[in-house]
Amino acid sequence: MSLFWWQEPCQSLDHVALRKATERQRRQLKPVRALGRLEPFLIRLAAQQGREMPHLSRLGCYLFVADHGVAEVGVSAVPRAVTGMMLGNIAEGVSALSILARRLNASLDIVDLGTVRQPADLPGVRHLQLAAGTRNFLAEDAMTPAQCLVALEAGREAAGRALSANLDLFIGGALGVGSSTSASALACALLGCPAELMVGPGCGLDAAGVARKRTLIEAALERHQAVLESPLGLLQSLGGFEIAALTGAYLGCAQLGVPVLVDGFVSTVAALLATRLNPRCRPWLLFSHCTAEPGHHWLLDALQAEPLLQLDLLLGDGSGAALAVPMLQAACALHAELASLDDGLKHMAAPEESAPTRRVGG
Amino acid sequence: MSLFWWQEPCQSLDHVALRKATERQRRQLKPVRALGRLEPFLIRLAAQQGREMPHLSRLGCYLFVADHGVAEVGVSAVPRAVTGMMLGNIAEGVSALSILARRLNASLDIVDLGTVRQPADLPGVRHLQLAAGTRNFLAEDAMTPAQCLVALEAGREAAGRALSANLDLFIGGALGVGSSTSASALACALLGCPAELMVGPGCGLDAAGVARKRTLIEAALERHQAVLESPLGLLQSLGGFEIAALTGAYLGCAQLGVPVLVDGFVSTVAALLATRLNPRCRPWLLFSHCTAEPGHHWLLDALQAEPLLQLDLLLGDGSGAALAVPMLQAACALHAELASLDDGLKHMAAPEESAPTRRVGG
Repeated sequence: MSLFWWQEPCQSLDHVALRKATERQRRQLKPVRALGRLEPFLIRLAAQQGREMPHLSRLGCYLFVADHGVAEVGVSAVPRAVTGMMLGNIAEGVSALSILARRLNASLDIVDLGTVRQPADLPGVRHLQLAAGTRNFLAEDAMTPAQCLVALEAGREAAGRALSANLDLFIGGALGVGSSTSASALACALLGCPAELMVGPGCGLDAAGVARKRTLIEAALERHQAVLESPLGLLQSLGGFEIAALTGAYLGCAQLGVPVLVDGFVSTVAALLATRLNPRCRPWLLFSHCTAEPGHHWLLDALQAEPLLQLDLLLGDGSGAALAVPMLQAACALHAELASLDDGLKHMAAPEESAPTRRVGG
Repeated sequence: MSLFWWQEPCQSLDHVALRKATERQRRQLKPVRALGRLEPFLIRLAAQQGREMPHLSRLGCYLFVADHGVAEVGVSAVPRAVTGMMLGNIAEGVSALSILARRLNASLDIVDLGTVRQPADLPGVRHLQLAAGTRNFLAEDAMTPAQCLVALEAGREAAGRALSANLDLFIGGALGVGSSTSASALACALLGCPAELMVGPGCGLDAAGVARKRTLIEAALERHQAVLESPLGLLQSLGGFEIAALTGAYLGCAQLGVPVLVDGFVSTVAALLATRLNPRCRPWLLFSHCTAEPGHHWLLDALQAEPLLQLDLLLGDGSGAALAVPMLQAACALHAELASLDDGLKHMAAPEESAPTRRVGG
């Protein structure tokens, strides 16, 4: 494996499955594009999974947890100790993602990359503890180059576990006080967008808090302008361990051929970073929803992504993606089970006006 | 029962349950409005169901089927015999709604109000056969006053069955070649909107077909202008049996206290008609999605409705609403099971910077 493993090729989509899935939809007894934006989604999933009829049975949720040095300066609505509190809730099964993963019968894989207070060993949580959170990017680089590589690699290892479990879909999420600040700074840098247009309330800041967050991010962008053109440099300077791990996970999934459903704002920043590190990962990324963060739709535009849901969710732990899954499972069932035109003709004695075309309904 | 039964009062929402559900969301360990547009949806459902923790366990899908006289003139992409073909597919379980109802473990109640070719008796289908479809509204009133009342009453009876089955949610749908033409004419009349802005491809018309459909609808509006101010007169002049039945069903549900999830374009027209016949039914109507029909969002605006999904679906048989249900079931689980702030504090020894507020995350 090269040190820059993410530059290695990604899996190809299965173009035979893609063609068969397209043809299957065309033969079905329904108006053309009756399933709207679910139709291209299903075709893409078919091409990723290499089957005419995709399914979403074996699901895995991967939550990457880390603290952020920038949260020292009070850029978030809550103190950093909340990261550990949330980790406890997740392990106890009363967080949003744990509730949804249980409903979906999905595995829940939690990677604690580095929190301010190392929590007691929690069941089902991997504690990597690269450091007690990143450093404050207002003063220095958030990570050392080695930390950045280890965090990327932790995501790649999660993708490897997803492949071993033969998952139909990888859902990633991020948790950590300061996560949206780090992600917003990265987004501004990646898109060349002023903080005023990108930065929002994260998980509960008031207007004064948002104004302060914007000012701090502008200062950080100024400080780190030497790396603005390098996605890896940006990740090391402004990122969080959990964002680097998500980025590595998305790249790993694309290399191993595991379909990815991207979650909210932070996950979308990781997806954009992944495509900057290796554009060939893009076909493996599906997008679940657009959050209420003001810059999220620009990130999605830059990725040429049309998210399925626009519910103004503000979660980020992967639960927005998990919320979309049951609808996608139902869509897979429609793709597999809807009558074809041939089936339908059985019910149609002597047409009244003319022979039916492929389109039906009113 | 009065002849104009729909003018009788509707059930009140449960304001104690509404307040408790609101308070419950406020105490939960999540950012304020983290569930976005699902939060007011859940509160409304709690107020409808009269419980702090709403649920969607017992579901019923009601499909109203009828043919349209206006389809004689070739205003649809398919001949009218297709209505009967679709009815056969539904009874066989290979239509979109039957597939989704099966997945949801929902009852499927099919009412055939009047089709051009009376189909052979199909299992689980009620054949009312008011007439062999409506008459062509380009030449005369689509229905007699008596037919209109019977169709409304058929919907009210469906609402009665939903109450008897103690349903948590009523999903209605419409099926019939010409349905979107009739619904578009009604929508233009109800909103005072020119056909050019309202009328779309329905289920598969090409540009020339859409232009013709618009011209015909303008002619119909001209012909029936004497009734433009009367919702009941409009329904009789321009409606379909299935649209009248949906309208009656929505009014009946509101009077009996059964929550309604409205489906696509045709269903939204029926919902608007219902609120014009009795505005007090509005609190019982929830809106699932906005279709690709160009005027659908105006109807939703007129109803002050924010639909949950915008997937450009073009189905209309209730399956758009059924697709949204699993997500809503998951949202109910989050509402019921998410940790409260009190639970969360257990995991939080000695906060680092300051006491936590209600908001969490990054």
